[in-house]
Amino acid sequence: MASHGRWGHREPWGLEALAMDQKGYRRGSFQSATSDEDMLEIAGASMDFSMADDDPPLDREMGGFSSYNGGGMNGTSTMMDFLEEPLPGVGTYEDFNTIDWVREKSRDRDRHREITNRSKESTWALLHSVSDAFSGWLLMLLIGLLAGSLAGLIDISAHWMTDLKEGVCLAGFWFNHEHCCWKSNTTFTDRDKCPEWKSWSQLILGHGEGAFAYILNYFMYVIWALMFSLLAVLLVKGFAPYACGSGIPEIKTILSGFIIRGYLGKWTLVIKTITLVLAVSSGLSLGKEGPLVHVACCCGNILCHLFTKYRKNEAKRREVLSAAAGGGGARGFWGALGGVLFSLEEVSYYFPLKTLWRSFFAALVAAFTLRSINPFGNSRLVLFYVEFHMPWHLLELVPFILLGIFGGLWGAFFIRSNIAWCRRRKTTQLGKYPVLEVFVVTAITAILAFPNEYTRMSTSELISELFNDCGILDSSQLCEYVNDFNSTKGDDLPDRAAGPGVYTAMWQLALALIMKVFITIFTFGMKVPSGLFIPSMAVGAIAGRLCWTGQSSCAGSSPSPEVGTAVTRSQSDLRRAVLAGGVTRMTVSLVVIMFELTGGLEYIVPLMAAAMTSKWVADAIGREGIYDAHIRLNGYPFLEAKEEFSHKTRAMDVMRPRKNDPPLTVITQDSMTVEDVETIVTKTTYSGYPVVVSRASQRLVGFVLRRDLIISIENARKKQDGIVSTSVICFTDYCPPLPPSSPSVLKLRSILDLSPFTVTDETPMEIVVDIFRKLGLRQCLVTHNGKLLGIITKKDVLKHIAQMANQDPNSILFN
Amino acid sequence: MASHGRWGHREPWGLEALAMDQKGYRRGSFQSATSDEDMLEIAGASMDFSMADDDPPLDREMGGFSSYNGGGMNGTSTMMDFLEEPLPGVGTYEDFNTIDWVREKSRDRDRHREITNRSKESTWALLHSVSDAFSGWLLMLLIGLLAGSLAGLIDISAHWMTDLKEGVCLAGFWFNHEHCCWKSNTTFTDRDKCPEWKSWSQLILGHGEGAFAYILNYFMYVIWALMFSLLAVLLVKGFAPYACGSGIPEIKTILSGFIIRGYLGKWTLVIKTITLVLAVSSGLSLGKEGPLVHVACCCGNILCHLFTKYRKNEAKRREVLSAAAGGGGARGFWGALGGVLFSLEEVSYYFPLKTLWRSFFAALVAAFTLRSINPFGNSRLVLFYVEFHMPWHLLELVPFILLGIFGGLWGAFFIRSNIAWCRRRKTTQLGKYPVLEVFVVTAITAILAFPNEYTRMSTSELISELFNDCGILDSSQLCEYVNDFNSTKGDDLPDRAAGPGVYTAMWQLALALIMKVFITIFTFGMKVPSGLFIPSMAVGAIAGRLCWTGQSSCAGSSPSPEVGTAVTRSQSDLRRAVLAGGVTRMTVSLVVIMFELTGGLEYIVPLMAAAMTSKWVADAIGREGIYDAHIRLNGYPFLEAKEEFSHKTRAMDVMRPRKNDPPLTVITQDSMTVEDVETIVTKTTYSGYPVVVSRASQRLVGFVLRRDLIISIENARKKQDGIVSTSVICFTDYCPPLPPSSPSVLKLRSILDLSPFTVTDETPMEIVVDIFRKLGLRQCLVTHNGKLLGIITKKDVLKHIAQMANQDPNSILFN
Repeated sequence: MASHGRWGHREPWGLEALAMDQKGYRRGSFQSATSDEDMLEIAGASMDFSMADDDPPLDREMGGFSSYNGGGMNGTSTMMDFLEEPLPGVGTYEDFNTIDWVREKSRDRDRHREITNRSKESTWALLHSVSDAFSGWLLMLLIGLLAGSLAGLIDISAHWMTDLKEGVCLAGFWFNHEHCCWKSNTTFTDRDKCPEWKSWSQLILGHGEGAFAYILNYFMYVIWALMFSLLAVLLVKGFAPYACGSGIPEIKTILSGFIIRGYLGKWTLVIKTITLVLAVSSGLSLGKEGPLVHVACCCGNILCHLFTKYRKNEAKRREVLSAAAGGGGARGFWGALGGVLFSLEEVSYYFPLKTLWRSFFAALVAAFTLRSINPFGNSRLVLFYVEFHMPWHLLELVPFILLGIFGGLWGAFFIRSNIAWCRRRKTTQLGKYPVLEVFVVTAITAILAFPNEYTRMSTSELISELFNDCGILDSSQLCEYVNDFNSTKGDDLPDRAAGPGVYTAMWQLALALIMKVFITIFTFGMKVPSGLFIPSMAVGAIAGRLCWTGQSSCAGSSPSPEVGTAVTRSQSDLRRAVLAGGVTRMTVSLVVIMFELTGGLEYIVPLMAAAMTSKWVADAIGREGIYDAHIRLNGYPFLEAKEEFSHKTRAMDVMRPRKNDPPLTVITQDSMTVEDVETIVTKTTYSGYPVVVSRASQRLVGFVLRRDLIISIENARKKQDGIVSTSVICFTDYCPPLPPSSPSVLKLRSILDLSPFTVTDETPMEIVVDIFRKLGLRQCLVTHNGKLLGIITKKDVLKHIAQMANQDPNSILFN
Repeated sequence: MASHGRWGHREPWGLEALAMDQKGYRRGSFQSATSDEDMLEIAGASMDFSMADDDPPLDREMGGFSSYNGGGMNGTSTMMDFLEEPLPGVGTYEDFNTIDWVREKSRDRDRHREITNRSKESTWALLHSVSDAFSGWLLMLLIGLLAGSLAGLIDISAHWMTDLKEGVCLAGFWFNHEHCCWKSNTTFTDRDKCPEWKSWSQLILGHGEGAFAYILNYFMYVIWALMFSLLAVLLVKGFAPYACGSGIPEIKTILSGFIIRGYLGKWTLVIKTITLVLAVSSGLSLGKEGPLVHVACCCGNILCHLFTKYRKNEAKRREVLSAAAGGGGARGFWGALGGVLFSLEEVSYYFPLKTLWRSFFAALVAAFTLRSINPFGNSRLVLFYVEFHMPWHLLELVPFILLGIFGGLWGAFFIRSNIAWCRRRKTTQLGKYPVLEVFVVTAITAILAFPNEYTRMSTSELISELFNDCGILDSSQLCEYVNDFNSTKGDDLPDRAAGPGVYTAMWQLALALIMKVFITIFTFGMKVPSGLFIPSMAVGAIAGRLCWTGQSSCAGSSPSPEVGTAVTRSQSDLRRAVLAGGVTRMTVSLVVIMFELTGGLEYIVPLMAAAMTSKWVADAIGREGIYDAHIRLNGYPFLEAKEEFSHKTRAMDVMRPRKNDPPLTVITQDSMTVEDVETIVTKTTYSGYPVVVSRASQRLVGFVLRRDLIISIENARKKQDGIVSTSVICFTDYCPPLPPSSPSVLKLRSILDLSPFTVTDETPMEIVVDIFRKLGLRQCLVTHNGKLLGIITKKDVLKHIAQMANQDPNSILFN
């Protein structure tokens, strides 16, 4: 068994390692890759990994183990008992290993069959069977409730703490600015100036005017921001290193079948919830949507422990997590449906139709819970409600497509810059000082943000401000148009001339745009929870608003006022859609999210056009979305389902052993002793061994996992009489007769996988990749004319794909 | 080669055959099932199947075939040339066969690789490569344009012909009622009574009042309805028997990899378009949405012929068809997005992310085209626009859930009744008189429909009428409330007392509901194009409206008027959603469709709750949706991806040969002569044969398809010198040396599939089913300890699933 090393001490399994030198890679891969035990550097965290509370129970006392009968008995009934109650530890996985989807699913079906069969015996068993059938829905209900509540809690806390940077409510410090001023009878236009709400300067100096008051407010703003972000990074560093980032790349990897213990654990949940509030409140350029998906998955994973069905089965648990991710998206502000589609399009790996229903249900419950908590103070689920009911005109498609092009370009620029910066962080000294990095970035953000009204407010406030369509009653600077109540009917807004405040606002917005664009690149990837959706939206909305106002103040009234209004108003709406699309490459879910966010039902076709254009442009520049780029950067073993493998290699080129390597390590079905097997297990690090009829024939019988083998032998030595080093291990149903003097036989047929996947050596790698992807295999054996030749593991496949992509980076562009 | 028999002459491969008798089934299955050539009774059509214009080119002149060198040459270069330009016919499929997804996809990748490699050689080749890459998008554009235009054409024609039943426009007979009256300056309330529009009685008798005029109108209405429907059924019967029904079950089967030649052909397209208009106009209780998906798929299939990439590859073509189905949904009235989701949820089998983008794009183009044609006379894409911007209240969830339960019950009832009726049609004399059946059903529908105002109008008009929320200005009978302009502010509508017209309308609506419910059961499945969505919606909307009006007139004003309004108004909206959900079992796409249809953005959570309840209730009663039920009824070889196979059988229980059967027919790699192979091919009907090293060792080398074998041998006998009956056929790279007197060797390695899929005999069937489903296999070989034992075909798997489901029908209920 490999000991759990310290983080990052072992060579990270990453693409850099592959690219470094071909010779070293070969040697390295052959020595350790089959073992599947290489450590990963998860998001650059480097701390002691000793908190795994569900360690492999190898050394645990085998107390309640009664049905395992001693060796030497040849009855098959023993085998059946053995099958039903396996050794503890047999069939579990080690950390940073890949699960075997096929085995997990067939184990679940066995369990299910057993319950169904028993259900005919008694009423209690029937009830058990029914409750088992509904446990999935119950679990989804609980996840929806918990995730929805947490989302509401985060929203409320973040709102309060954001306002804390500017002042405090005297009526009760737990009120945020808005709630505080609800109580006083101020008019709508003066809602920001109620007597109960005191800015820091008012509280300390007694007045809020003048240079000194400004400087004091400035100082307090920066201090609070630094406090929040430092607390966040220290909590992450000290208690849950997995809580940083958006979590979506890691969740994608986990859903594809990888095991990262603790990534979805209770500590991560608690710390991520707290630090997310802190990070959002600190005013950093980050959003809370990605982290909310992570929080929902943590809820899902923790609640899985309540049900045996999901606790014990990694594949079933991943189904729940996929659904939870969908439900997770439903919280925050992404609409319920958008969340489900987001999970389908971006996060999930294996998403059967059943998961779609469940995800839908979880999203429903979460949306409902969030609505009961009602963090937005109104009864809409739609955060930024914009009413556009004007039909759109063909002419409008042109700006929409132009915006799409811009969005694609921006997305590609963001991904490249962000990845370059994250790579620098990983490879240079920079990565060693995460706290300092957060401190510096927060300080710069806060210092630059305060003087500008539009960056000082929280990003979601900014976005609602930008969506404001300047009614007559609006008093904000952005809406300082010259109101002429006589000439217009009151709703032909663009006909009004722009006042001086609009030009000031334009300058401030332009500065805010530049600042957001650059600071977001450095922020995403720091050691605090950070989402990307809100910042992309903010950039898009600012750009859209700039266009709109620029257009309407330069051109005056457009030839057809109606068209003009529709074009310009919808631009900010659109721009957002487009930019977010460019970054993450979702289209369908994006359109639904935009729907739900703004209620802009009329604009579905232009929105689709813009989303498509954005995707094409971004694809032409670089194929990866931000999450995939981060997966590649961190070297996670994620088998991308979206790209097709298009090289003409065959299984024989990828399988081990290669030419000139020693032959494949195999175990024979009935001629090796316990000692022989133990020697093989000690000398090699492979995670499993093929079992053959005999070394000479190389005819394949099955496949046995290293972990199961170790546990079974160790247990047999302890518990079974007569098992010594010279005992023969027998994998067949009926063992060959032995001389009476020989020690008793160790029968291990129960741990043998009798249906290993095989392909022939001539099978094209494209088919092999497809099989690995679709069936979720861990390894596959290679045969030639019925004889065993070699083995291909998931890691071999991933390495081969990376190798081929390096050789010919353009080959995946056209397909 | 099997000759193309007449329809229905051979035993249909159906589940009835399985259920009939176990013994007969066994014998039958072993004799012919591997051959995959059993005929299907598609939708009960029984006509001569001689129109297949793309017959297997077995007898075609092998003109341009130059690179095939004679036997006896051992060079591998020959093999390479041979690979690049295969024999015409090799690699194609016969009608009613299942395609091999793996082989098709790897052929496409070969083609793609070749183009990519060549693109480096010249600029022209580079352009070719780029155009190849964009051909998919171009194809989608064309499909969207064509399908959108056809949808517009169908809408306009159906509208005109529906009105033709009542009268004619004197200003020009090509105007429908609405367009006709646009020209005259009538007021809004009197729009139905313009002088240019003459009812038949007005035209013939000169006046429109009195009993005789009524009878004349009645008579003309029935006559036109009969004419339209008879013309439709005769056209279907005479020219394109595949044009009947909704087409969705067949498209699902085709997309899963089955070949039905002509189902998506040009004749089907033309006839389906014409007869759809006729069927809708005749006033039968059917909709045009399902048939529109079929029309879009026909467009996709026909346009595929423009591009080599899609013409020659069955798997690629299915990708296009999936996307087209999504785009198909976008026409008609289902919103663009709803169409894509409908394709994903209901129709498609293999739906990679790339298809999602393409489908999205096709939907966009189709929606755009439809909008340009503008069949609804307004610029909205939303057909039944209902504005609900009131937030909903928790209390409302209760009626919504009750409606969900009702919807589920109705759906289950409809499916059971409809399937029972369709089974009766298939098994009794009834099926032999499709024209008479259509005549009778149309006569009954028309006679019952005319006296009732709400059934006389077209179903989509009825639905918009029901969605009408009774403003002050509305003059229809349904809205005959007592208007009291002084007491109410004008928008508190439910406070008004109901007038006598409302009660009359209620009676008429109740009668319409009963009629629609029963007549739809008999209509769906007749030999005319018929969709199901609009009738379900109509039933739902009527029921919803009855509830609403009943509630508001009995209870007077509800305790809280706001809540009352919201509950009651949204009910009709909801009811529809729920009923359609109960029938077809879509949830996510249904919610999106409802969104787009009505613009009811606020009601997403109640809609989701109702859709989920409906699905649960319907699932508890019977698991199948209407399309799946029809697939099962017709016995299509469709491997359901949604249900899990949960029986504990193993590959050895399903594979052929069974116990006591003669051993598997195999071909050896280098010891059989042409004559031996020809004998095997003649004596058996299997669609392929495993190739082994020798009969003694049974070690598997590869798999060769019957069709390829026949074509290659026939061709070699004609073209190659020295190939006679005693020539040895050699499947290896290097053939064993032969005595000099022997005839030259026929080398057939190029047609050998060197990477056949294998599983061990111990593999659980659940895993085998999973492999067949996910990889789209046609057959799979079974081995034991490296020796070939047997074969499992897709048909064996389907038969096994059906057999197990018959044994234990409850087993699939709980999982």
